[in-house]
Amino acid sequence: MDQLFNGGVKIIQSDTVFSFSLDAVLLADFAHVTKKTRLVDLCAGNGAVGLFLSRYTQQQIDLVEIQAKLADMAQRSVALNQLTDQVIVHNLDLKEAPQKIGADFADVVTCNPPYFADRPDSVKNPNPHYAIARHELKTTLNQVLNTSSRLLKTNGHLYMVHRPERLDEIIVALQQNRFALKQLRFVYPKADREANMVLIDAIKDGRPNGVRILPPLTVYTADNQYRPEVQKILYGTERS
Amino acid sequence: MDQLFNGGVKIIQSDTVFSFSLDAVLLADFAHVTKKTRLVDLCAGNGAVGLFLSRYTQQQIDLVEIQAKLADMAQRSVALNQLTDQVIVHNLDLKEAPQKIGADFADVVTCNPPYFADRPDSVKNPNPHYAIARHELKTTLNQVLNTSSRLLKTNGHLYMVHRPERLDEIIVALQQNRFALKQLRFVYPKADREANMVLIDAIKDGRPNGVRILPPLTVYTADNQYRPEVQKILYGTERS
Repeated sequence: MDQLFNGGVKIIQSDTVFSFSLDAVLLADFAHVTKKTRLVDLCAGNGAVGLFLSRYTQQQIDLVEIQAKLADMAQRSVALNQLTDQVIVHNLDLKEAPQKIGADFADVVTCNPPYFADRPDSVKNPNPHYAIARHELKTTLNQVLNTSSRLLKTNGHLYMVHRPERLDEIIVALQQNRFALKQLRFVYPKADREANMVLIDAIKDGRPNGVRILPPLTVYTADNQYRPEVQKILYGTERS
Repeated sequence: MDQLFNGGVKIIQSDTVFSFSLDAVLLADFAHVTKKTRLVDLCAGNGAVGLFLSRYTQQQIDLVEIQAKLADMAQRSVALNQLTDQVIVHNLDLKEAPQKIGADFADVVTCNPPYFADRPDSVKNPNPHYAIARHELKTTLNQVLNTSSRLLKTNGHLYMVHRPERLDEIIVALQQNRFALKQLRFVYPKADREANMVLIDAIKDGRPNGVRILPPLTVYTADNQYRPEVQKILYGTERS
């Protein structure tokens, strides 16, 4: 199944294995990438974030995905978009990425990681592909941050999307992995609801105490339509 | 100079010594206080937060303020509002508060602390009363959190207002002082601007990883009027 999205990128996905979500689209929109940006996307899934961002950089992009089926979908999307010269898919546990791809070289790491800790009592998706993508069965927050820190050059940026519930743990773990928190943007389903997503920008070896909280990103209007900003991020144009 | 505010509380203030701000009003609104709440307000200034909250609890309230002139203004406001039986003003360095007032007894601590670290290069207000209220000349974030933790009983709540720039430092310091971050509410001057204030709710000895990000609080409309929610917090009624 193909999906045509903002900017004309085609993404292969499958309901029974993996579909990218609004989270991936907002993360790609949040990440600041220029034509000289050397980019690594961790927990790449079917490659949506890296493929979206391929429009903005002329440098090589490395996608790292531990699940063979998802890495294969990503590889097929890379071919479908004729990006095999630019985008490399690694079917790899992310903790092996710095040794395989290199250390201290990336300008930007993006990551849409599993959101939920692997607790004995946590209810997991019976579909193992979704369970691994959503729960920390194969990696942890600390492993993601440690790997990101090793991949990035000094002053490189990590852009990550996560759940607000874990913001306390995330901020402490960022500091423990040489990151300074730079920007947060909270995503609210509606104007009067609590945030259900947070976009995080952190700088390797950056200076602390300069956190900026970007304007709230509200997804839906009161009558359940995408708000114009989100409409534009999703489809490249406001609703006509 | 008197100021009549939401709920009919009169607050004595002076432009040359100290005036309470929107920050204090929003903090008082954010704090959850019931008629059984034993409350301590640190960095009390002219007593605005404690006086606003006196409407909601029937228990004793302790205000702690290091500056004698401000503590005197708070004391005069307490008398003016006929609250001398309920509200006690302590002209005290907050680090002495647990020994003087008691430890492990408060249900709620509120604090509108100095926002800015005392750095050699930081520009301070030439008025010493404002300088002490705004810069950490007489206390520090860590001292505020340590004192709050000592005053509170287990599961007691700290409600604090601060600047988003220091959110990283605040969250790490909360954890170091036995607090679990519970709720954050970001205050945005306008819908399309970055937050310039954060309201923080933390629980002594609480469980981590349950952070809730409350709906955004936006102060002004695009044409510089208070938005209805803020109008109501300030004046107890929406603009007629």
